[in-house]
Amino acid sequence: MLSAIDKRILAQVADLHEIPQGAYNIRKNGMGVQRNSTANIEIKAKEDKPGIDIIVKPGTKGESVHIPVILTAEGLEDMVYNTFEIGEGADVLVVAGCGIHNPGSEKAEHNGIHEFFIRKGARMRYVEKHYGEGEGTGKKVLNPRTVLHLEEGATAELELVQIRGVDNTKRYTEARLERKAHLVITERMLTHGDQYAESDILIELTGEDATTQVISRSVAQDRSKQIFYPRVVGQNKCRGHVQCDAIIMDEAQVRAIPEIAANHSDAQLVHEAAIGKIAGEQVIKLMSLGLSEKEAEETILQGFLK
Amino acid sequence: MLSAIDKRILAQVADLHEIPQGAYNIRKNGMGVQRNSTANIEIKAKEDKPGIDIIVKPGTKGESVHIPVILTAEGLEDMVYNTFEIGEGADVLVVAGCGIHNPGSEKAEHNGIHEFFIRKGARMRYVEKHYGEGEGTGKKVLNPRTVLHLEEGATAELELVQIRGVDNTKRYTEARLERKAHLVITERMLTHGDQYAESDILIELTGEDATTQVISRSVAQDRSKQIFYPRVVGQNKCRGHVQCDAIIMDEAQVRAIPEIAANHSDAQLVHEAAIGKIAGEQVIKLMSLGLSEKEAEETILQGFLK
Repeated sequence: MLSAIDKRILAQVADLHEIPQGAYNIRKNGMGVQRNSTANIEIKAKEDKPGIDIIVKPGTKGESVHIPVILTAEGLEDMVYNTFEIGEGADVLVVAGCGIHNPGSEKAEHNGIHEFFIRKGARMRYVEKHYGEGEGTGKKVLNPRTVLHLEEGATAELELVQIRGVDNTKRYTEARLERKAHLVITERMLTHGDQYAESDILIELTGEDATTQVISRSVAQDRSKQIFYPRVVGQNKCRGHVQCDAIIMDEAQVRAIPEIAANHSDAQLVHEAAIGKIAGEQVIKLMSLGLSEKEAEETILQGFLK
Repeated sequence: MLSAIDKRILAQVADLHEIPQGAYNIRKNGMGVQRNSTANIEIKAKEDKPGIDIIVKPGTKGESVHIPVILTAEGLEDMVYNTFEIGEGADVLVVAGCGIHNPGSEKAEHNGIHEFFIRKGARMRYVEKHYGEGEGTGKKVLNPRTVLHLEEGATAELELVQIRGVDNTKRYTEARLERKAHLVITERMLTHGDQYAESDILIELTGEDATTQVISRSVAQDRSKQIFYPRVVGQNKCRGHVQCDAIIMDEAQVRAIPEIAANHSDAQLVHEAAIGKIAGEQVIKLMSLGLSEKEAEETILQGFLK
């Protein structure tokens, strides 16, 4: 059953304050603890490896699936394979956060491998929040691997957020878009202390009129390090836009190594990246309104990561 | 002595229609053919390897050095090491093109390795044009390697142009900037046929208030391929701006893989890249003024690469 810590983590990573409506699967310390399927959304355990299949019937509209993961023990290395089948013409929300409360000195690690088949004309919004906490010195590690197949006219909107407290993350996101498919990825990341974060995104625009937009915003504090590799490849008449903005503070380090590759003369690809500190004039303006320097900075960072 | 072909190539790569004023060194088919030093600029052959030392006295102002290279024979693989010493407070122009007329079916290749020491407060403008021609099927290959050391307050402006006719190029440019040094690189490149071009730029901003700007514009036609790796690393309070624009036509392919890396919280780095075709409305506008589609495209490309 869920403890007070579990509930706090569920609120952080999945905005859940009670058992969710609709389909859900709650995984804790490497095991499924609660599950619910609905008439249109079936969740079933995989038979060959840890993880679940989430099957959304064609035409399902306005329903949601929550599949949060909680780790509350040290020395745990959890690996899970989830496969999503979003049926033709469906329109659903998937919420898939992961929170780690590490009480000890040993590492707690979760590796989530998510594969999505978004069928013709289907639409999915996907929200993934990552969060770590715990009084111990044990590292909190989260390595998500996300693979998307977007069929003709399919749309996916991904909101990938690392709130705070994650010591080490290697994010890998890969997508292949067919004709008229559309993908939006919004990434928000905060690192602090001695944390390390790496995000590798590869989007292949294979179908005519496929379009994508990637928006990455990050804040690197203390001695933390961040590396971004967003890549968009245009194989057809298509459009892609990648925008990376990072705020760097203290002794942090940020590298952005985007790639745009046009293999078709009607591919239109744009990339913008900027790394810099908080705008001084914004801090001064907020301080003139009565905030301390620290409060002013905090307010600006919150706005930037919103 | 210089033939009619030699003179045509010198006009293309170094805007030379006669023997230049000031210091110069003309290299043809792997050998120096004419050389001139002045009171302030000494040019002397290296003793340990092919190439020359160009020594500009401190305080030299308004003078120029021309060091064009001509290849007019097939089956030639020329490798040359040139070292430039631009003395404190000097302000000079260096013109260093290379043109290949390959009459045969074997490859003609020139590898120029240029190293620049730009001393305190000195200023250099450097123009390098690359051009290939010739009735034969032999490849024309140009691989320039340029290394720059900019001391405190030094300024360098590089204009690197590949006009046309170069089958294969791997350009490598590396620079290290000390306090208040400033570097501008403008790259212009046209590829056509089955040509391949790669440009790798690494700029390290090590000193406080070092600044750099990289502007790359390219046109890829036919089945040609281009790859760009511009990289700017900020190790101090500094500013860097990289802008890559490519026009892609026919079955050409273009990849841009820029990197900005901030290792200091006062480093301010920005990158922008765009790959796309010629704007259709511009073509239509010029066609409405009486130009054919081909003429309209040509006019736009000329403007873009200017």
